[in-house]
Amino acid sequence: MTAVDQTPATHQVTAKIDKTYLEDKLLGRWKDLRLIARGFARDPRIIRDPSLGMDEHRERVLEQLKILVSEAQVLRAFPERLGGSDDSGGGIAGFEELLAADPSLQIKAGVQWGLFCAAIHHLSTPEQQDRLLGAAMRLEVPGAFAMTEIGHGSDVASIATTATFNEDSGDFTLHTPFRAAWKDYLGNAALHGQAAVVFAQLITKGVNHGVHAFYVPIREQNEDGSTGALLQGVSSEDDGLKGGLNGIDNGRLAFDNVRVPRENLLARYGEVSADGTYSSPIESPGRRFFTMLGSLVQGRVSLDGAAGVASKIALTTAITYGNQRRQFNGASDTEETVLMDYQTHQRRLLPLLAEVYAGHFAHDRLLDLFHAVFSEEGMDTPESREDLETLAATLKPVSTWRALHALQTAREACGGAGFMTENRLVQLRQDMDIYVTFEGDNTVLLQLVGKRLLTDYAKQFKGITGMNMARFVIDRAADTVLYRTPLNRAVQSIADTGRRARSANELRDEETQRELLTDRVETMVEKVAAALRPAAKMSQADGAALFNEHQSELIEAAKAHADLVQWEAFTKALRDIEDPGTHSVLVALRDLYALSRIEANLAWYLINGRLSTQRAETVTSYINRLLTRLRPHAQDLIEAFGLDDELVRATIATGVEQKRQDEAREYYRKQRASGDAPISEKTLAKAKRATKR
Amino acid sequence: MTAVDQTPATHQVTAKIDKTYLEDKLLGRWKDLRLIARGFARDPRIIRDPSLGMDEHRERVLEQLKILVSEAQVLRAFPERLGGSDDSGGGIAGFEELLAADPSLQIKAGVQWGLFCAAIHHLSTPEQQDRLLGAAMRLEVPGAFAMTEIGHGSDVASIATTATFNEDSGDFTLHTPFRAAWKDYLGNAALHGQAAVVFAQLITKGVNHGVHAFYVPIREQNEDGSTGALLQGVSSEDDGLKGGLNGIDNGRLAFDNVRVPRENLLARYGEVSADGTYSSPIESPGRRFFTMLGSLVQGRVSLDGAAGVASKIALTTAITYGNQRRQFNGASDTEETVLMDYQTHQRRLLPLLAEVYAGHFAHDRLLDLFHAVFSEEGMDTPESREDLETLAATLKPVSTWRALHALQTAREACGGAGFMTENRLVQLRQDMDIYVTFEGDNTVLLQLVGKRLLTDYAKQFKGITGMNMARFVIDRAADTVLYRTPLNRAVQSIADTGRRARSANELRDEETQRELLTDRVETMVEKVAAALRPAAKMSQADGAALFNEHQSELIEAAKAHADLVQWEAFTKALRDIEDPGTHSVLVALRDLYALSRIEANLAWYLINGRLSTQRAETVTSYINRLLTRLRPHAQDLIEAFGLDDELVRATIATGVEQKRQDEAREYYRKQRASGDAPISEKTLAKAKRATKR
Repeated sequence: MTAVDQTPATHQVTAKIDKTYLEDKLLGRWKDLRLIARGFARDPRIIRDPSLGMDEHRERVLEQLKILVSEAQVLRAFPERLGGSDDSGGGIAGFEELLAADPSLQIKAGVQWGLFCAAIHHLSTPEQQDRLLGAAMRLEVPGAFAMTEIGHGSDVASIATTATFNEDSGDFTLHTPFRAAWKDYLGNAALHGQAAVVFAQLITKGVNHGVHAFYVPIREQNEDGSTGALLQGVSSEDDGLKGGLNGIDNGRLAFDNVRVPRENLLARYGEVSADGTYSSPIESPGRRFFTMLGSLVQGRVSLDGAAGVASKIALTTAITYGNQRRQFNGASDTEETVLMDYQTHQRRLLPLLAEVYAGHFAHDRLLDLFHAVFSEEGMDTPESREDLETLAATLKPVSTWRALHALQTAREACGGAGFMTENRLVQLRQDMDIYVTFEGDNTVLLQLVGKRLLTDYAKQFKGITGMNMARFVIDRAADTVLYRTPLNRAVQSIADTGRRARSANELRDEETQRELLTDRVETMVEKVAAALRPAAKMSQADGAALFNEHQSELIEAAKAHADLVQWEAFTKALRDIEDPGTHSVLVALRDLYALSRIEANLAWYLINGRLSTQRAETVTSYINRLLTRLRPHAQDLIEAFGLDDELVRATIATGVEQKRQDEAREYYRKQRASGDAPISEKTLAKAKRATKR
Repeated sequence: MTAVDQTPATHQVTAKIDKTYLEDKLLGRWKDLRLIARGFARDPRIIRDPSLGMDEHRERVLEQLKILVSEAQVLRAFPERLGGSDDSGGGIAGFEELLAADPSLQIKAGVQWGLFCAAIHHLSTPEQQDRLLGAAMRLEVPGAFAMTEIGHGSDVASIATTATFNEDSGDFTLHTPFRAAWKDYLGNAALHGQAAVVFAQLITKGVNHGVHAFYVPIREQNEDGSTGALLQGVSSEDDGLKGGLNGIDNGRLAFDNVRVPRENLLARYGEVSADGTYSSPIESPGRRFFTMLGSLVQGRVSLDGAAGVASKIALTTAITYGNQRRQFNGASDTEETVLMDYQTHQRRLLPLLAEVYAGHFAHDRLLDLFHAVFSEEGMDTPESREDLETLAATLKPVSTWRALHALQTAREACGGAGFMTENRLVQLRQDMDIYVTFEGDNTVLLQLVGKRLLTDYAKQFKGITGMNMARFVIDRAADTVLYRTPLNRAVQSIADTGRRARSANELRDEETQRELLTDRVETMVEKVAAALRPAAKMSQADGAALFNEHQSELIEAAKAHADLVQWEAFTKALRDIEDPGTHSVLVALRDLYALSRIEANLAWYLINGRLSTQRAETVTSYINRLLTRLRPHAQDLIEAFGLDDELVRATIATGVEQKRQDEAREYYRKQRASGDAPISEKTLAKAKRATKR
C-alpha cells in the first residue's frame, strides 16, 4: 500500500494514530509466532498460484504441508514429549495467519493438525497418543476427520455409522448402513488420506453408548510413504469441484463391515474392555458427548481468527484503493473526487472497519480463554470449557459472515477491478464461503448460544449469580466493574425503561452504550424465556412447535449478545492503549461500532421504549459525524493491521492506481498550461449565449 | 424436482395454487420465445461444462455463439431488412432465459448482440447499418464494446480516449493518451474481437463535442474467418482469470494514433463533414450524450431479467431441498424435522420468494415499456425514454443484489451440499457477482434514480403534475387509481401523519400497504429536497459537500422507490389472476413482500410517526403468520417458475435427498420392527433410575 497523497482540508484532524504502536498492540500476546507465520505466508513456495486447476492445486497444497511440518510451524499445540510445545494459543495464532497464503493450505493444515491430529490428541489415552500421534503430526500419515455424514451435518449426535463390538473376536465392526450415512466433505478423503478418525455410534452388548471416535486406516501406504489403494471394505468418492478451497481433496468415505481393533477406539472418554463391557469417566451420556465434541473447539476458535485476517485483507485493499481512485468531479471542474470522500463509500467501509476492530479484540479474548483451558494449569474445568464453547459459538458466526460481507463490499467498492482475480477479493471470498457453514453451521451455533443464554437466565432463579461466560473475562480484568455482562442484573429491567430512556441522552457516553447493548440482550432473553415457559407442561411435539415459533427471536438474542461481547472486548482493549492520539481515534471507532449496532436495531430500541424517536433520529446523524471524523484516519487504521503488499497480494492496492491517477492529472495539467486543450462544446455554447446577451 | 411427499398436518391449507395456470401467467407476453430459449438452455451443446479451465471455456462459448446465430436466436431485436424481426421485447425475453445455460454464454452473447451490434444499430445512420451491421449480426465480425476505461467506469462522460479529426486527411486519429485511458474489462477484447465500437471524445476544429462512438477494426480476419493478429497501433492485454464469467475473453485495448475513416464515426446523433464541421440533430451536448447512452439501456433491462432467472434457480434448489432434507428431531423421538418446517428456514427463504415474485412482475412492466419505446409506433419520445431509463436504473440494482443474496442464502440453506459445484449455486453466484457493478454500478444507478426523484419533486412546484415514470404504467392500466405512485400527491404529507398512523391499523389491507410504501418515498424525497435547497446559492464545492452529506439518504429514497414500484407491479399482476386458489396464495405472498419491506424499515416508520410502537410490534408477528400460511405452498410457488431439473442442474434438487431420507427412515423403521435395535444408554439409564425408585 502507498499512503494517501493528500488529506482534504475540510477534514479536521485532531489526533494522530501511532501506527507502529498500534500494529504492535494488534499483534498482541503471540506477536512473535504471528510474525513467523506471516513470513511463511509471504513465502513463494507457500502462497497460492491462482492459475492452477484443481488437480495441480491439490498436489501443490500437499507439498506445502510437508514444508510446514519440516519447518515445525504446525506442531506447537501438541505435547512436548511428542515434539510439540504444549502451546495451544500460540498454535492457533500462527495457524490463523496462514490464511494470507492460501485458505486451501490453511484448511488442509486444519484438517491434518487441527482435526485429525487434535482428535487423536484430545480423545486418546496417553498410550494411544504415543502410538498414533507422532506419525500423524509428522504427516507420515495424512488423515481425514470423518464426522459429518451426508444425512447429518450439524446434528452429530444423530449420525448413523455404527461401530459394533464383537465379543467373540474382540474387535469392532465399523459399518455404513445406508447412503445418507456416508461420511462427506472430508478433506484428505478423496486422495491423500491414509487413515481417518471415524465417528460412529458405539454399540456393545446391545446398548448404544453414543458417538465415539475410532482410528481407522483407510488406504495403503506405498514404500515411498505416498498414499496407495483403498483398504478392503473402505469406499471413497471425490467431491470434485467446489465453490472454493479447491486445493483440498474433499471426498466421501463409507465402510462395509470394516474390522477395527479394540485398541483403536480413542478411549479417553469411553472404553470397551475385552469382554465387551463399556466404561467411561463421565457418567452422563449427554455430558460425555459434549465433552468429546468440546475438546475439538479449536476449529471454531481458529476460524474466528482466520475470518478476521480475511476481513483485514478486504478492507486494506478497498480503503487503499478508495484513497487513490478518483471518480466524478462534483466539487471542482478540474479535480475529480477521491472515492473515500464520498459519504456512501465511507458508509460502506468505515462501520465495517469498526466491526473488524471489535472482532479483532474479541478474538484476542477468545484465544486467551482457549489457551487457558488447554494449556494453563488448573483452568480446564467443565465451566471454563462451557464458557469457551459458548464464546466460540458466539464469535465464529459473526466473524465468518462478516468476512464474506467485507470481501463482497470491498469487491464492489473496487468496481470491475474488484472482480479480477489479480486483485484477490473474489478468490478469497470463494474460499471463505464455506466457513459460514462448516465447523458448525452459523445458524445452528447461534441457536446454541441462545439456548445457553436461556439456561443462564433460568439459573438466576436458582440463586446462581452472574453468567458463566463472563467469568473468565472478569478474572482477567483489573476493573471488574467494566465487565458486567448480560444477565448479571435483576429481572426488573423490562419495568425499568424510564430510567434507561433518560440515560440514553448521550450516545457517545461509554456507559450509555453499554446500557443500550446490555439491555437489549437481557430483555430479548427474558421475553423468549417468558414465551417458552408453557413448554414445560406441553407434549414434546407442542413444546417443539412453541420453541420453533420463537427460534428467530432466540437467534436475534444471540446476535445481540455477540454485539455486546465484541463491544466489551473493544472497550477493554481501549484501556491498554496509552498513546493519546491512537486512543482518541480508537474511541471514535468504538463509538462507531456501538452506534452502528444500535442503528441496525433501531426499531427494537424504539418499540421497547429504550430510545425516544427524537434520540433515535440523532443516531444516524451522529454516525455521519463519526464517519467524517474517522475518514482521515482510515488509511492508518488499516496499515496498522501490518498486512503489506506481499500478504495482501492485490495489484490495485500496491499504488498502481495512484500512479495512473497522477499520470492522467499531469497530462491534463500540462495540456491546460500549454493552451492546446480543446475547448468543450458546452463551454463554447455558454460563451456564445453570453455574447448574445 | 420431486414434490414434497407430505405436508405436516399442522398447516392449514385453505387454498391451492393451479401450477400450470400460474406458470403460464409467469411466462407472460413472450411465452413462446421464452420456451424456445429454454430449449436452448437445456441443449447439451449450449450448457456449461464446469470442468473446463478458462481457455477451453472461452473457446466453447465462442462455438456456442455460432450455434445461436445459425439457429437465429439472437437477432430478433434487429431490423427486418437485415434479418431481424424488429421485436425488441422478444429479443430480450429470449436472451434472459439463456442465463440458465451459462452466464458466460449469455454475457458473451450480450457483448456481441446487446452491445457491439446494438451500438451499431442504435447509433448509426441507415447507410452505416447496411454497411456494418450484417456481418456483426452474423458473428462474422466478433466485436468489442470499448466504452469503459481503467480510470473511468460509471463516469462515461469523463473518458479520456480522443478521436481528433484531421482536416487535411479527412479522417480521425484515435488515441489513448495515458494508462488510465486504456479500455478495460471488454468482452472479445483479449482474443476474439475483430472490431470494436470505441467511445472517444470527438474533437474537431479545436472543439471537444463530447463522447461519440466509432467503428474500429482491431484485428485481422484470417482467410477462414477466424481472428488474426492485432492491427497496427492497436494494443491488447488479457484480463486473465476473473471471479466468474471465465468463458468470456475480457481484456484491454489501447490505440496509438490509429487512423479511423470519417465514415466510421457512428453518425446518427452527430457527424463531421469532410471539412471538419460538426453537426448534430440534438443541440444540447448534455442531452445528446444521454440520448446516445440511453439507446443502450437494453443491457440493464436484460440484466434485470437475467438476475431474476438466477434468483429463481437459487430458490428452486433451496426450497426443493428444504422440503426433503430432515435435521434434528425436536418434535418426535423417531422423526426428524423437515428443514422447511423450521421458522428460521422459512424466514430465510419465503420473504425472498415474495421478493422474487415482486421482481418478476416489475420486470414484466419494464420489458413492456422497453418494447414500446423501441418497437411500437410513436412511443419513442424523450419522456418515455427517460421513464424507461429510470425504471431500468431502479430495478437493475435491486434485482442483481437480490440474485447474489438469493444464491448465497440458498447455498447456506443447503449447508455443505450448497458449496459443491455439482449443485451449481456457488458457480452461479461467482458469475452473477459482476452484475452488480457492470452496465452501471448499482450505487451510481440508484443515485441517478434519486436525482430523478428530486427533479420530479421540483417539477411539482412548476405545475407539472405527476411523475413521469408512472405515466406509462398508468396508460396501460385499466384502473388508473391503482397506479398512484410517489410524488403524485400534494406536499402536505409530512404534516399529515395523524391520518396515516391511524390508517395503518390493518396491515393486510392493500390500500394501507400502498400508503405506507408511497408515503416513505415521498417523505424521504421531500426531506432531501429541503436539505439541499441551500445548495443553489452555494459555491460549487460547498454545494457538492452538502449533496455528499445527503448522498446516503438519497440512495435510501431510491431503494424505497424500488420497493414501491415492485409492490405496485405485484399488485397490478394480481388483478390478472383469475383462478381463486392461485389468487389467494399470491395475495398472501404480496402481503409478505409488503410487510417484509416495512419491517426492514421499521425504525423509519416509527421515527416519522407512521406506525405506533404497538402497531410496529405486530409487523413481525404478522409476518410469522404469513410464513406459516405460505409454507405449504412454497413448493408450488417455485414449481410455477417452470425450471425443471435440466434448467436448474443442481443434483440435490433432483430428488436424491428424498431417496436418501426414505432409505434411512426405512432402515430404522425395519430395525425397530425387528426388535434388533440397540437400546440407547440414555434410555437404559432412565429405566434404571425408574427401577431404583
